[in-house]
Amino acid sequence: MSPTVTVPAGPAAPTRPGEPRLLVLKIGGSVLSDKQDTGETDFDAIGAFAGQVADLIAEYPGRVVLVTGGGALCHPVGLRIKADRQDPYAAVALTEPAFTMRWAWTARLRERGVRAVPLQVTAMFGERADGSTITETGVVRRLLAEGALPVLSSDCVVTSVGTLRILSSDEVPALMVAEEFGPVRIVTLTDVPGILTGGPGSPVLRHLDPDDLAVAERLFWPTDAWDATGAMAGKVEALAEHARRGAECVIARGDRAAGSLRHLFAPMAEWPADTPFTLISRPWSPS
Amino acid sequence: MSPTVTVPAGPAAPTRPGEPRLLVLKIGGSVLSDKQDTGETDFDAIGAFAGQVADLIAEYPGRVVLVTGGGALCHPVGLRIKADRQDPYAAVALTEPAFTMRWAWTARLRERGVRAVPLQVTAMFGERADGSTITETGVVRRLLAEGALPVLSSDCVVTSVGTLRILSSDEVPALMVAEEFGPVRIVTLTDVPGILTGGPGSPVLRHLDPDDLAVAERLFWPTDAWDATGAMAGKVEALAEHARRGAECVIARGDRAAGSLRHLFAPMAEWPADTPFTLISRPWSPS
Repeated sequence: MSPTVTVPAGPAAPTRPGEPRLLVLKIGGSVLSDKQDTGETDFDAIGAFAGQVADLIAEYPGRVVLVTGGGALCHPVGLRIKADRQDPYAAVALTEPAFTMRWAWTARLRERGVRAVPLQVTAMFGERADGSTITETGVVRRLLAEGALPVLSSDCVVTSVGTLRILSSDEVPALMVAEEFGPVRIVTLTDVPGILTGGPGSPVLRHLDPDDLAVAERLFWPTDAWDATGAMAGKVEALAEHARRGAECVIARGDRAAGSLRHLFAPMAEWPADTPFTLISRPWSPS
Repeated sequence: MSPTVTVPAGPAAPTRPGEPRLLVLKIGGSVLSDKQDTGETDFDAIGAFAGQVADLIAEYPGRVVLVTGGGALCHPVGLRIKADRQDPYAAVALTEPAFTMRWAWTARLRERGVRAVPLQVTAMFGERADGSTITETGVVRRLLAEGALPVLSSDCVVTSVGTLRILSSDEVPALMVAEEFGPVRIVTLTDVPGILTGGPGSPVLRHLDPDDLAVAERLFWPTDAWDATGAMAGKVEALAEHARRGAECVIARGDRAAGSLRHLFAPMAEWPADTPFTLISRPWSPS
């Protein structure tokens, strides 16, 4: 099943200036399914992206955490959970489609020689009654040290008032925004090349200050009818929070036919000129 | 889905002498399926036991962790994993059937008003390169404090040499054998009333000293052809390890038609006379 042996690199791997130690790669449900139309998960797309990720892991073993978007499988469940006003544990329903997505990735990554291990965020993250955060990532760090690939997703998590809520896949990178992983880059691949400054096809916002989101907010449009996570607005809010904690956050287009993801580890100034993106980071030195 | 609201009890709940604070209840795959014959999981049995567990949780909210045996779904996968000599990550294959079992319990417990939350052991437990143990149970404790029921199972875990291995459902209670949970009682319900002293129907061994297993070993018979975990021998070895760490471990028969599980919280001397069991504990004061 898994013939290729990757060399353990782990937290001691060297980096050059502007290069992240850890890449948290979120591949959005929007490129794995059509949330608005067919309601189907595109397992061929997962296979194609799994090939790109396998190539990246071969070059950077132990330095990637994958976060899968939920897409068609998870969003209808998410909407039902949000509509439930009775059951404070309704969000546990997300557990099943979230597992299915993680497992679909794991199977396809293993076929390509990656030591992929799906991990449930519910078991590692939550809030205590005093509002402080439970973040237990010992197994994530252990797997990275062995050159393996943790596969995470949205999941339900326990809140400070003892209910369950959905932790969206855009929020999940919070588990890895901690000193022992840093510097961390969070790249979210989606169906647009960044925050669009106008309608479809318009140029993207190159940089967003996570302490001043007003410039972005007027660019967003309402999508709640078909997307449980508020689409771009929710994504930017979650990424800005990671950026305020020190992560470098990038929104770019996911292309299943792309040749390589290697540039995701390069300093931002070295990204290919034909690859637009929005960077959300603090502080930022334009280069 | 979950109309009944259980009252949070959590770690502050009072106990009387001989009563455990936390009950880790393992319901064996052998009573949920026929490992030798049909190869089918008995979902009606899961439903019946879920009813018993729901009654117990109503009385002792926040003081039970459920561990489901794998049974027919997991054992064939376990045997294939053990036979694999090539892939050090072969054990990840257990993740899927283990999830299916946890989810089957969760759905049936929720129908009965229990705030059941399935948790993946892979994400909470493992070994570091220096051989020390990663045990991260903050979410388990948090859910118990809210009166919820964590639902665990066998899973793959990372080893000190960086491979994955199966952690059997008899080994899983190790996560809860720690001071913050104690005193802990581990009850494993199976298809025999304890360690039999002879053939089928013979009396059971009443007590086993976890530091002297020789007396039990001559009572075991080989079962490896159909059971990935070595049946009773593997179970006793795992429970003896928990007992050496201070837990009170009990093997008893699981009966889906039983009226109540309330006695599982009683001091051992108060268990019903018609309920045989084998107790593995250190020290033991016969009463």
